[in-house]
Amino acid sequence: MTQPLLQIALDSTDLHTAVDLAASVAEYVDVIEVGTILAFAEGMNAVRTLRQQYPDHILVCDMKTTDGGAILAKMAFAAGANWITVSAAAHIATITACKGIADEYHGEIQMELYGHWTWEDAQAWRKLGITQAIYHRSRDAELAGVGWTPEDIQRMHTLSEMGFEVSITGGIVPEALQHFRGINAKTFIAGRALAGENGSVIADALRQEIARYW
Amino acid sequence: MTQPLLQIALDSTDLHTAVDLAASVAEYVDVIEVGTILAFAEGMNAVRTLRQQYPDHILVCDMKTTDGGAILAKMAFAAGANWITVSAAAHIATITACKGIADEYHGEIQMELYGHWTWEDAQAWRKLGITQAIYHRSRDAELAGVGWTPEDIQRMHTLSEMGFEVSITGGIVPEALQHFRGINAKTFIAGRALAGENGSVIADALRQEIARYW
Repeated sequence: MTQPLLQIALDSTDLHTAVDLAASVAEYVDVIEVGTILAFAEGMNAVRTLRQQYPDHILVCDMKTTDGGAILAKMAFAAGANWITVSAAAHIATITACKGIADEYHGEIQMELYGHWTWEDAQAWRKLGITQAIYHRSRDAELAGVGWTPEDIQRMHTLSEMGFEVSITGGIVPEALQHFRGINAKTFIAGRALAGENGSVIADALRQEIARYW
Repeated sequence: MTQPLLQIALDSTDLHTAVDLAASVAEYVDVIEVGTILAFAEGMNAVRTLRQQYPDHILVCDMKTTDGGAILAKMAFAAGANWITVSAAAHIATITACKGIADEYHGEIQMELYGHWTWEDAQAWRKLGITQAIYHRSRDAELAGVGWTPEDIQRMHTLSEMGFEVSITGGIVPEALQHFRGINAKTFIAGRALAGENGSVIADALRQEIARYW
């Protein structure tokens, strides 16, 4: 198990704000994410701009691709993304199309675990050669007060055992990381926690917790 | 049951091509859709541009919203969309947030029926006051040769009976419309069929079939 990476989700509704936030946290993070909100606000220009500014970071485009897989994947990888997200609700033909394009660009697919996905689905994704999945509390569920449950943690362990590297998101703060011990965690994704004035302090605290448990 | 509308899906990867296509079909269609591909390519500028050019058409932004519902919905409605799409895989908190914003803007939500959605889910959407759903063959499934099945048609009838107006998409051609008789169809969504040289002829044929069966 390698040490989990730290990922900033840029989810502002304009590129200017996102570029400023990226500049303030880039030295503390390994992965920069063009969030769905930013991607819909500014289009692929957001990906191109951040790629140009951060040639050495891993860049994710969080499209939650649900259909039109080949075209969307090509658009994002061509703009400079290393990873794109694909919805667990997508038809297997869509996921296959995304994986094919990812392979062409030496990129990777991350399955976004929304909706009533099944273990059978997860096995089909592994069979396609997909090795990443994102487990999260929905942002809106989190706002509605829904917490991490023992079932969440158990599912992440099972995904690990199936061979997935799991990225974890949804109100990630340093004191939460201990709950995820033993999981093959690829990245911890934070947005608002790193965006504030204390961003660098929180990033340090997250790294310390990562070093303690992985 | 009112007569179904005709909807063009603009799914090009650049706004210029989309604007040209819209100009060539606007007089034949009731609803203009900024497809997911176009929205991710060009951002909300695509919605704003088409709103400006077509103030009297119904304008849909096909975001397949899966999380961050309030912000995405606000972005699209503020840019001029009348309807936005929300993924059936979204958490109910996300769907509730989208509906709240839609109500503020006198807009509507269309549930996109991807993934393992259930009738219990559909009832929860109706309970929120949502009256539209989109039923489709996945674009990628269609490319993989998956056709309309009797189960598809039966599900559309059940959705109608639950009070949903159903928009239908996925390789819509005039000779397919007879299969959907008796369904409370809101729109038939076509893309490539209307985009070709024969676009106006095909639009006429679609309208004739609509008039025959509804």
